[in-house]
Amino acid sequence: MKIDEAEETIRALLPEKRFRHSVGVSETAGRLAEKYGGDVKKARLAGMLHDIAKYFPDDQLAAVIRRRRDIPDNFLEFSDKLWHAPVGAVYAEEKLGITDREILDAMTFHTTGRKKMTLLDKIIFLADYIEPGRDFPGVDEVRKAAESDLDEAVYQELQRTIMHLLEKRKSVYPETFEAYNNLINQINEVTG
Amino acid sequence: MKIDEAEETIRALLPEKRFRHSVGVSETAGRLAEKYGGDVKKARLAGMLHDIAKYFPDDQLAAVIRRRRDIPDNFLEFSDKLWHAPVGAVYAEEKLGITDREILDAMTFHTTGRKKMTLLDKIIFLADYIEPGRDFPGVDEVRKAAESDLDEAVYQELQRTIMHLLEKRKSVYPETFEAYNNLINQINEVTG
Repeated sequence: MKIDEAEETIRALLPEKRFRHSVGVSETAGRLAEKYGGDVKKARLAGMLHDIAKYFPDDQLAAVIRRRRDIPDNFLEFSDKLWHAPVGAVYAEEKLGITDREILDAMTFHTTGRKKMTLLDKIIFLADYIEPGRDFPGVDEVRKAAESDLDEAVYQELQRTIMHLLEKRKSVYPETFEAYNNLINQINEVTG
Repeated sequence: MKIDEAEETIRALLPEKRFRHSVGVSETAGRLAEKYGGDVKKARLAGMLHDIAKYFPDDQLAAVIRRRRDIPDNFLEFSDKLWHAPVGAVYAEEKLGITDREILDAMTFHTTGRKKMTLLDKIIFLADYIEPGRDFPGVDEVRKAAESDLDEAVYQELQRTIMHLLEKRKSVYPETFEAYNNLINQINEVTG
């Protein structure tokens, strides 16, 4: 699928604000891929499509998670805000004919992260957090880190995301904890 | 083992300051057990003994963790500050003849917590954090919570402990995350 087609698909499926967010993630992901030696086309495409299932109703999302044996069932025990990510990847595969596993995985884990994140996983996870439309306390610090150190920026995003959930008394999807532990051990081994 | 014997054993094994901490944990655990319908004798004994292996050298702690198949090996991949807890339980069992599984488990998980914490697990975990000798920002808030709601106080301790590790860029033992998720789900179910 070409990026222009993906953009038109997303424009048709998402409200204006979420469409602009998707374009922002796509562009940011492309820039991060360029900087860190990733595949720019894959990054732009995954970024454009990552939220494709964001406005599907919860019962439809849950039905897809139950139907597809390759999506962990335990998604359903955690916040419904996570469900659109794996279902978006299923939609991209089944309806848009995307077969590239790297793209599908980066879409699947764009909200939670996962234990061993690929370069493309990190790029999409981070681009979703720092694209120019995002505005929340601390985002500029993560943007700054993203200029020079991808893992540091992803660590900061994971740290802030987990702390936010802890403060709000929400549970945390286990893969997010594992992503944090795995990355911080890597960082500490390199620097420490 | 009687509490007086345990106290003499601990006095002989630990430096003065850590001995006083152990007495504080024992007394606090006894009070919490009384308040929340736990076994006061077990709580006082587990509290007195919880840090018994605190000053064993790291290589000895690691050797015990490797030898005992019932201690998860992954302790060794995480901070050595965690190791004295399971090894203390092994020492209590092998050298002091303590066979009560509840006491040994509460000792094993006093630093990390675990997925499904028993009443005694929670009492020792919390008493270790709030005994009168402890002095750190926020401890009084947890002490206050412990007056009226054991789960709320344990949640606060887990939240603060995890946030502290995230801020310090340290990994978090997986059972601690699971303890947090499990408890917060329980609390949210009860309060709606």
